[in-house]
Amino acid sequence: MIIRDKSNWWRLLFVWHGSVLPQILPRLGVLFGLSVGVVLLHGQVLHYKVPLTAAPFTLFGVTLAIFLGFYNNASYDRFWEGRKLWGALLNTTRSLARQALTLGAYPQPTEASVHFVRLLIAFTYTLKHQLRHTDAAPDLARLLPAPLAQAVQAATYQPLRLLLEMGRWVQQARENAQLDTTTQLAFDHNFNQLSDIVGGCERLAGTPIPYTYSVILHRTVYLYCFLLPFGLVDSLGWLTPLIVVFVGYTFMALDAIMRELEEPFGLGANSLALNAMSYMIETTLLELAGESLPAQPLRPGRYLFD
Amino acid sequence: MIIRDKSNWWRLLFVWHGSVLPQILPRLGVLFGLSVGVVLLHGQVLHYKVPLTAAPFTLFGVTLAIFLGFYNNASYDRFWEGRKLWGALLNTTRSLARQALTLGAYPQPTEASVHFVRLLIAFTYTLKHQLRHTDAAPDLARLLPAPLAQAVQAATYQPLRLLLEMGRWVQQARENAQLDTTTQLAFDHNFNQLSDIVGGCERLAGTPIPYTYSVILHRTVYLYCFLLPFGLVDSLGWLTPLIVVFVGYTFMALDAIMRELEEPFGLGANSLALNAMSYMIETTLLELAGESLPAQPLRPGRYLFD
Amino acid sequence: MIIRDKSNWWRLLFVWHGSVLPQILPRLGVLFGLSVGVVLLHGQVLHYKVPLTAAPFTLFGVTLAIFLGFYNNASYDRFWEGRKLWGALLNTTRSLARQALTLGAYPQPTEASVHFVRLLIAFTYTLKHQLRHTDAAPDLARLLPAPLAQAVQAATYQPLRLLLEMGRWVQQARENAQLDTTTQLAFDHNFNQLSDIVGGCERLAGTPIPYTYSVILHRTVYLYCFLLPFGLVDSLGWLTPLIVVFVGYTFMALDAIMRELEEPFGLGANSLALNAMSYMIETTLLELAGESLPAQPLRPGRYLFD
Amino acid sequence: MIIRDKSNWWRLLFVWHGSVLPQILPRLGVLFGLSVGVVLLHGQVLHYKVPLTAAPFTLFGVTLAIFLGFYNNASYDRFWEGRKLWGALLNTTRSLARQALTLGAYPQPTEASVHFVRLLIAFTYTLKHQLRHTDAAPDLARLLPAPLAQAVQAATYQPLRLLLEMGRWVQQARENAQLDTTTQLAFDHNFNQLSDIVGGCERLAGTPIPYTYSVILHRTVYLYCFLLPFGLVDSLGWLTPLIVVFVGYTFMALDAIMRELEEPFGLGANSLALNAMSYMIETTLLELAGESLPAQPLRPGRYLFD
Amino acid sequence: MIIRDKSNWWRLLFVWHGSVLPQILPRLGVLFGLSVGVVLLHGQVLHYKVPLTAAPFTLFGVTLAIFLGFYNNASYDRFWEGRKLWGALLNTTRSLARQALTLGAYPQPTEASVHFVRLLIAFTYTLKHQLRHTDAAPDLARLLPAPLAQAVQAATYQPLRLLLEMGRWVQQARENAQLDTTTQLAFDHNFNQLSDIVGGCERLAGTPIPYTYSVILHRTVYLYCFLLPFGLVDSLGWLTPLIVVFVGYTFMALDAIMRELEEPFGLGANSLALNAMSYMIETTLLELAGESLPAQPLRPGRYLFD
Repeated sequence: MIIRDKSNWWRLLFVWHGSVLPQILPRLGVLFGLSVGVVLLHGQVLHYKVPLTAAPFTLFGVTLAIFLGFYNNASYDRFWEGRKLWGALLNTTRSLARQALTLGAYPQPTEASVHFVRLLIAFTYTLKHQLRHTDAAPDLARLLPAPLAQAVQAATYQPLRLLLEMGRWVQQARENAQLDTTTQLAFDHNFNQLSDIVGGCERLAGTPIPYTYSVILHRTVYLYCFLLPFGLVDSLGWLTPLIVVFVGYTFMALDAIMRELEEPFGLGANSLALNAMSYMIETTLLELAGESLPAQPLRPGRYLFD
Repeated sequence: MIIRDKSNWWRLLFVWHGSVLPQILPRLGVLFGLSVGVVLLHGQVLHYKVPLTAAPFTLFGVTLAIFLGFYNNASYDRFWEGRKLWGALLNTTRSLARQALTLGAYPQPTEASVHFVRLLIAFTYTLKHQLRHTDAAPDLARLLPAPLAQAVQAATYQPLRLLLEMGRWVQQARENAQLDTTTQLAFDHNFNQLSDIVGGCERLAGTPIPYTYSVILHRTVYLYCFLLPFGLVDSLGWLTPLIVVFVGYTFMALDAIMRELEEPFGLGANSLALNAMSYMIETTLLELAGESLPAQPLRPGRYLFD
Repeated sequence: MIIRDKSNWWRLLFVWHGSVLPQILPRLGVLFGLSVGVVLLHGQVLHYKVPLTAAPFTLFGVTLAIFLGFYNNASYDRFWEGRKLWGALLNTTRSLARQALTLGAYPQPTEASVHFVRLLIAFTYTLKHQLRHTDAAPDLARLLPAPLAQAVQAATYQPLRLLLEMGRWVQQARENAQLDTTTQLAFDHNFNQLSDIVGGCERLAGTPIPYTYSVILHRTVYLYCFLLPFGLVDSLGWLTPLIVVFVGYTFMALDAIMRELEEPFGLGANSLALNAMSYMIETTLLELAGESLPAQPLRPGRYLFD
Repeated sequence: MIIRDKSNWWRLLFVWHGSVLPQILPRLGVLFGLSVGVVLLHGQVLHYKVPLTAAPFTLFGVTLAIFLGFYNNASYDRFWEGRKLWGALLNTTRSLARQALTLGAYPQPTEASVHFVRLLIAFTYTLKHQLRHTDAAPDLARLLPAPLAQAVQAATYQPLRLLLEMGRWVQQARENAQLDTTTQLAFDHNFNQLSDIVGGCERLAGTPIPYTYSVILHRTVYLYCFLLPFGLVDSLGWLTPLIVVFVGYTFMALDAIMRELEEPFGLGANSLALNAMSYMIETTLLELAGESLPAQPLRPGRYLFD
Repeated sequence: MIIRDKSNWWRLLFVWHGSVLPQILPRLGVLFGLSVGVVLLHGQVLHYKVPLTAAPFTLFGVTLAIFLGFYNNASYDRFWEGRKLWGALLNTTRSLARQALTLGAYPQPTEASVHFVRLLIAFTYTLKHQLRHTDAAPDLARLLPAPLAQAVQAATYQPLRLLLEMGRWVQQARENAQLDTTTQLAFDHNFNQLSDIVGGCERLAGTPIPYTYSVILHRTVYLYCFLLPFGLVDSLGWLTPLIVVFVGYTFMALDAIMRELEEPFGLGANSLALNAMSYMIETTLLELAGESLPAQPLRPGRYLFD
């Protein structure tokens, strides 16, 4: 939820953002305790002053800026590419439904075209289940005739199996002379798109940002934060814990959110809302086919995908 | 409006930019008051000197640079992508109108092709209304025959319903032997584009930049600004309020404009001019169809979309 | 002109770049005078020392880096996108000319295909005139038969009107059985591209970078420059004016060139050479059609588009 | 492997990342030894104090930030583009297999379509062998009839030779009236894509980032690291070796990983898993064709491509 | 050449990179001499101490970072876009050769298809000669029949002339009933691509990065380097020349390489290897057509395009 009420700018300073804060709060507590200890001991460890000033933190700053800037952009790009792929899935399934309803010889939705639309919906759900490693069986049973549902369930690459089924549906329609070859290729063009979308999602899910980046970034952030009180205590005195915890908060929150965005198909609070998006695709396709909508219809609103 | 008169570079220093200044002026006032207070008290709170120097602000600077740089780019990219989508809407509706007028067998615009052009215009308006959550009924009544207007109004996804209607129009023309299958697919290709545009707009409207970024950035900016007078008072003396307010002005104005650009389909002063763009699409399509233009015609000028 | 002669690297230090220097020279003069005054008065104003050191400029530096980096990239992207659009215009008109000459049934250029090529050239010129708000009438009269020239001149969206005319040309050729439907669609595909190019140019011309960015950047740059002598006079002494003017020169020149690149279809020295590009498109299309070239033929050379 | 267990954030600080650490550990040892020496000698070399402070490192920082930022982005972009190309290879071969199975007149996989699928698999393996300079003969012998395997083996550009073979397969099918010309072109469209993928891989493999960047970056990183102890010993004392080694670790690890990502088709630990990807393409295509899978089937899981 | 041998990391520190070093070595010598002079005179000019410290260099650093970062990215993008265009040229000519060999009615290469392949090769060479302003006549004479070679040589836009010839070749084949209209359009699609490639190369060659950027960057880099010894001599003493020359080396080398990458079709050591790439296109096309390869065949290896 974005607070857009302009008079509330100061409220935004105290809002609780539940997806990240609970995760990093314990670490901030440790950091606060350390800072207080450093202040009370005047930066001494075992009666020996730690000779740290603000200077080396400027050097660290260069490394941190490079790492954080890169990792943040790479994570957000992955998140946004995942979102674009599911947006393309919505667009392409809508286009295919429209094609099934208008390119053939029948002006009204028929049983066959409704079956085709259900194939598209099942395709969406199997992709979701593949990406989240969950079981597609309930959705398949709900949407497809039993023999087909079992055949798809038995496949290793379920969305691909359904794509093949759609191809056969069009092939059948051509052989029944409801479509000609040229029209078949218009479907085929969009099947290529669906194939690209499946492959794109598999790419994002299967190839994370190289692990070494993650480790180095994590280490730099935490070492920076836990050395900071020693470096600031001489100049900031009793203010040290407050400043250190705030700097630590920004770095740790950034580190945490990047880890979530990096895997857009995961289950974190900032991952993509695949359930809501699958449901939306189902409703929009059913509406096109003139079928009754499921129980709780969704309007495409601003915060649908939060 | 961009002041391009070269002799006016110093005038630009004092211009009033109404979209952002009124919003942040009260906050700048608070900041100015605080700075004056800090100067008068020589940086003391309750007769206790706040031990803040310029050093920690360099550390803050790293965080701020990363956050502001990222958020600013992400916001502007969203704004520009929204603009591109509406630009593509203009291009594609123009192409479809041209196709309706030249691909068939009739050299002059007919009643049927004018109806098709009105479908395109209605499509544009329903997309605008969906994105702004306003009621499309008046525009539908103006552009479409009553039964169709009601059917569209009843749909959850109105632009998609109109896209289906366009598909049926082409299907009808093919059955009347005014088009052949190949030509139908040239229309279909552009219908796919319109489907992509609708989905792209829904994606931008429905998936904001993750909320955590927004909160952390907001907090960092304001904490930075309100700690600044304590850090600068020792070195800058009576100049502190001026410098602090100017630094605060740049940060707060950036924070404010980013919040507007982030939602390109909103109603802020820097959001996209969807009304003007819809109207322009209407006039350009009507001109192509040889229909009379609405009352106040627009020329495609430099500041049309301001 | 790029000086590539390697022995000349030191000459590049003293070259006069006419597009930007004359614009900012007066401002640099003011800055130099101010700096000299500050040195002579040892940083005092009304016998009161301005308490400014180099420290706050580091803070300003963060803001400046973000603003300049962003604005510079955004401006250059606009410039380069404008260039790409006109490059695409060249490519697509060439492709359409080739199609008109090879897809039909006639192996040699006919009167009809030369007319089509003239439509393409007129399309290019009307787009140029629309973007620069100049009158297309002379070019239309030169290229088109009088009735068509008048009809185009009367249109609000002249390039679109010509695109419709090209569509009708192909429609006519199909009805004369010189082309079949499939070939008509190959033309139509490139007409869609031309429609995208027109819309892309209108988008760049009609939607500048939000004004607030421009104002804040301008203010930050100039305030930074005019405060700089006060901050440097203590450490640099008599060297202050030289350093300040050089720093001011880089910032002001960047500010000035960004303002030019931002509007690639304008008339500044760094705007796109629309005249030269239109002329090149004319010559390359006429050569393809086997027509005699205009008076002074251009070779596609390195500095054509400077 | 990404450790996502939230309670483990401190474990990530001590994890061993095998792909980079063994490579840079000896250099870190040298750096540690040097730093200890510098501390023991109080920064003196031959009883002469090296006059280095932290100041010049800030200047170095600018260069380093530019170089590292650029090189890191360029390397990661190459890695990700390589990954995208192999993702596109997966998508396109799947699409072609679906086309071979559904566009023709036969509803069940035939011997001919299985042969076509084997051509696709052989294409994938020859591309992998070309990129890694290994011998494709075993894979060709396994997948293709002997005469064809020998003909491909004899070719300089093996994937291209197979693409030509696929083209002939479709040509044959058309002459047997199993496909018409329009359908042939749907295959041809995807052959163009495969041609683009081969060329894209050759481009990445054949054109590294210009060598000069690599040399300058390497020198800057190591000179920076080995001068650092002299610059920090005065302010950090006995803490110098720890801080220097940590800073050196981040820079050297970044330098090392960039060198691996830069060549995505190499054999480093962070290069692309071409073997796993080839095998996955084989299984997914065989499943589509209804053929039995090879011995150890792979599920498309999260860590497939690590 | 990239040295990947891991044990050689220290050798990379002393490697000679011939493309840039000879160019900047004299300037580094001047810089070294100046620095030694500054050290010997203790920073005095005419017995007057130059009041320069390290502080203003931090301010310069901001400007430098912005300019270098931008210019470097822009140059490298131009280099990489040029490389992509030539990669696309390879892909598209291969695709067209495959089309000529498989889309028609003849299963074996005929004289006509070999002529078409020679047209493609001649197209490649004329593009190379146009970009480098060299004479295409020898290559044309080698590849084409004499009358055609003369006609092409006489044209202003030679690659376009050859593209028209290819269009006529396909037109001829259609009239001989070896191809149908649909197939003709598959060729035409790739002709559009070739047209885009020619235009893209002309765009890169004809529109350099605006000159003002180049001048300001050059000045900033050299002024920075030549002021540096005065700013560092107080803190670094006899170490000044070494540090200054190293900083100067990184900046000047970056400045030099950027100037080369900026013009990817030039003749510098870091420009694109257009000769090698043209030759590779020739061999790969001849192999596809079953023609004998030229004298020294090239394998597509790692360092082909260095």
